[in-house]
Amino acid sequence: MINVTVWSEFSLSCKCAEALAVYPEGHHKLIADALNKCKNIKAVSATLDMPNQGLPDELLNKTDVLFWWGHCKHDDVTEELADKIARRVYGGMGLVLLHSAHLSKPFKRIIGASGRLNWGEGGERERIWVVNPAHEIAQGLPEYIDLEKEEMYGEPFGIPEPDETVFLSWFKGGRVLRSGVTYRRGAGKVFYFQPGHEGFPTYYNPHIQQILINATNWAYSGGRTQKVDCDCVLPIEPLD
Amino acid sequence: MINVTVWSEFSLSCKCAEALAVYPEGHHKLIADALNKCKNIKAVSATLDMPNQGLPDELLNKTDVLFWWGHCKHDDVTEELADKIARRVYGGMGLVLLHSAHLSKPFKRIIGASGRLNWGEGGERERIWVVNPAHEIAQGLPEYIDLEKEEMYGEPFGIPEPDETVFLSWFKGGRVLRSGVTYRRGAGKVFYFQPGHEGFPTYYNPHIQQILINATNWAYSGGRTQKVDCDCVLPIEPLD
Amino acid sequence: MINVTVWSEFSLSCKCAEALAVYPEGHHKLIADALNKCKNIKAVSATLDMPNQGLPDELLNKTDVLFWWGHCKHDDVTEELADKIARRVYGGMGLVLLHSAHLSKPFKRIIGASGRLNWGEGGERERIWVVNPAHEIAQGLPEYIDLEKEEMYGEPFGIPEPDETVFLSWFKGGRVLRSGVTYRRGAGKVFYFQPGHEGFPTYYNPHIQQILINATNWAYSGGRTQKVDCDCVLPIEPLD
Amino acid sequence: MINVTVWSEFSLSCKCAEALAVYPEGHHKLIADALNKCKNIKAVSATLDMPNQGLPDELLNKTDVLFWWGHCKHDDVTEELADKIARRVYGGMGLVLLHSAHLSKPFKRIIGASGRLNWGEGGERERIWVVNPAHEIAQGLPEYIDLEKEEMYGEPFGIPEPDETVFLSWFKGGRVLRSGVTYRRGAGKVFYFQPGHEGFPTYYNPHIQQILINATNWAYSGGRTQKVDCDCVLPIEPLD
Repeated sequence: MINVTVWSEFSLSCKCAEALAVYPEGHHKLIADALNKCKNIKAVSATLDMPNQGLPDELLNKTDVLFWWGHCKHDDVTEELADKIARRVYGGMGLVLLHSAHLSKPFKRIIGASGRLNWGEGGERERIWVVNPAHEIAQGLPEYIDLEKEEMYGEPFGIPEPDETVFLSWFKGGRVLRSGVTYRRGAGKVFYFQPGHEGFPTYYNPHIQQILINATNWAYSGGRTQKVDCDCVLPIEPLD
Repeated sequence: MINVTVWSEFSLSCKCAEALAVYPEGHHKLIADALNKCKNIKAVSATLDMPNQGLPDELLNKTDVLFWWGHCKHDDVTEELADKIARRVYGGMGLVLLHSAHLSKPFKRIIGASGRLNWGEGGERERIWVVNPAHEIAQGLPEYIDLEKEEMYGEPFGIPEPDETVFLSWFKGGRVLRSGVTYRRGAGKVFYFQPGHEGFPTYYNPHIQQILINATNWAYSGGRTQKVDCDCVLPIEPLD
Repeated sequence: MINVTVWSEFSLSCKCAEALAVYPEGHHKLIADALNKCKNIKAVSATLDMPNQGLPDELLNKTDVLFWWGHCKHDDVTEELADKIARRVYGGMGLVLLHSAHLSKPFKRIIGASGRLNWGEGGERERIWVVNPAHEIAQGLPEYIDLEKEEMYGEPFGIPEPDETVFLSWFKGGRVLRSGVTYRRGAGKVFYFQPGHEGFPTYYNPHIQQILINATNWAYSGGRTQKVDCDCVLPIEPLD
Repeated sequence: MINVTVWSEFSLSCKCAEALAVYPEGHHKLIADALNKCKNIKAVSATLDMPNQGLPDELLNKTDVLFWWGHCKHDDVTEELADKIARRVYGGMGLVLLHSAHLSKPFKRIIGASGRLNWGEGGERERIWVVNPAHEIAQGLPEYIDLEKEEMYGEPFGIPEPDETVFLSWFKGGRVLRSGVTYRRGAGKVFYFQPGHEGFPTYYNPHIQQILINATNWAYSGGRTQKVDCDCVLPIEPLD
């Protein structure tokens, strides 16, 4: 069983009439529900306004894969929480960063990136190409996925060269983005996936849900871990 | 002219009798002096106890390549300063992280790493192998460099897979380390180099000085930059 | 002085009326002429129908950067020549692979790739985005370059994850491609660049010429080399 | 069930008295036997002197993971067979390259590498460090593995920067090697693992056998595939 926590800042931009019309309980709930349809996944959701910013140690330490969605409240997340999440990732927790999380503390300090990009308001047709069709995250998908309306995010995207580029997006207005990229950080696997504006029904799309399910299974370390703290050791003289 | 700032925490461990016997003014001074022998480099040194922790905006913003050495005072460096350094790196400043900087805030958040490793006290023979002899940082070196005594740092080293592995170290006691590794982060080039305990005369070694000079030239972006902040843009409909 | 050889198969597809109308002497000549405008570059051209398939040892061994354009005659290039080129690259020669060279022997065996992609005839508007604006190959360019008509090459592109992704292309018909990617192979630097169909005037575009000039300067190893053959060696026992 | 073929050139160096004293039927048989102890693996062995050099299409096309060991007869392997293996890897077949396979045609053309290194005769104590303890190939292992005697292979090793560095080796005589490295090539996963001289009992070591079993499970694509040939396609005009 993979324990997933779907975290969202769930701030005003998610609670405005426009967003609630699409996601009445917030898209974090919808994502958790979609993941819970899988027998091997147990997903809960958490939000910034909860105690311990939604991630008390007890929950964080048993989370196998953390989904993170933030937009307007990146600065409200404490340094302490960001550090704890980083430690958990280095120790093996999976991390799925969604949409405007590209400017969040976990994204910036775990990937090591500015996260900068160009963005355009209003919504634009996006076509997501599978460029690595053998990747675990791309299983069960068509060649490409069309989204009628998404927030445009365009290059140059301030990220290190990805370990794996899974998706590239084409926008009707003439821009492109590396929209699905992976990084290994310590024992943890990290996936950034660009679509998911709070006002568009992207997370209802069955292909997008398939990607999130695939990402969960891919990011789950299966208990494989790596130390995070230094050890003082003695020389190990080999036998001659 | 490449403007270098050699920063050191210069705390008690650097000011004890044992360390001052080797580096009477601190190794940061010695490194700056070594770099200043190059006509194209202008190096200054800075320490944690100076105003603005040694890196006021005016200095940081004109620094082309920052050397960073820290050991016991990582936590004293402010989040604000670590963030400013990260921004400068993403915008093109070079960063050379020395020895125990593997646990510093700039290392951890710019590379995206725990920095954990095994370490052994007392000093041990180290042999540094050039594994990428065509790399700019390895020019003018022999096949390998022997250091009679260095602090042992051994794998597993908590770093992302390097963009380039330049040096691997062999320790007499039976351990190994990826001791010279590079990362590109935004427009900035980052180099971590393991030798340099405050009590050993490593930085007097002419091969080690050559590496630091090479790293300076390599890490200097030559003015090539990249935006760090997001831009809101309009669609660019192509002509048909 | 950087010695460049611009190699083209210059076969029927380049000699048909349509292609000669655009490049009367072949695009290899035009590229060599463009490079020769730089004071630090000395470019010659070579074609498949010349003795030794255009690359006798004497020429190959003094070539610092090799440009390669092939399309219909990949199989005619001998294994022996492909092997010689690979050895030269591992030893430090730069390699710039153009357009349909993605299926050439040098591309496939030096990068280690199938080179497969989708392609569309007839010509289509292409927009080339600079995604790594600090990269040496991207200097002096605008944010993006519009080509009125190019052969469409679309993902999935059968390449290893690039060491550096410099350009991504957007095609009006709805496709995308990683159109400018770099690889380090031994001491050699390799750049693949997608535009350049024999019937379109792409290589006249001053931005495209700038890219080819930048690529030459970037790929030039400056004499930094690396051994290609194995050595039998003795143990090096460290002192005490 | 994972279908494995363990290929060896099984030439004179494997059939001399010294080698047969260690591996009476050749180490390829021993490896196949070790893999066959796993319920989910079905391994067969094949040698260069068999029809079709041991890999007729029927066998190659149903092989999920190919082990390759060669030493003196690299040049005898046909270009045609090397090309077929490359195509299978790009399409998803796993490839495990053992010991002196670093100069084999499959290694050089699939990874894109010279494979050069330093080597020392006679046998030397080797210590293999796990540097990526969370990697699938490193599961069930101690911190390091001591081999009393192995052929020394030392840096500089002519390989592209690995996608993942799993093992680093320390040799008593003062050298080091990146001894376990992975590459993704198309849909295929490739692992090179250095130990395994024909005259030393390395493949009897239970930790080494564990690594080969882990590598099989890791390299198995589970049916995930990727096209190897180009497709001619039409533009896909998006709905407006």
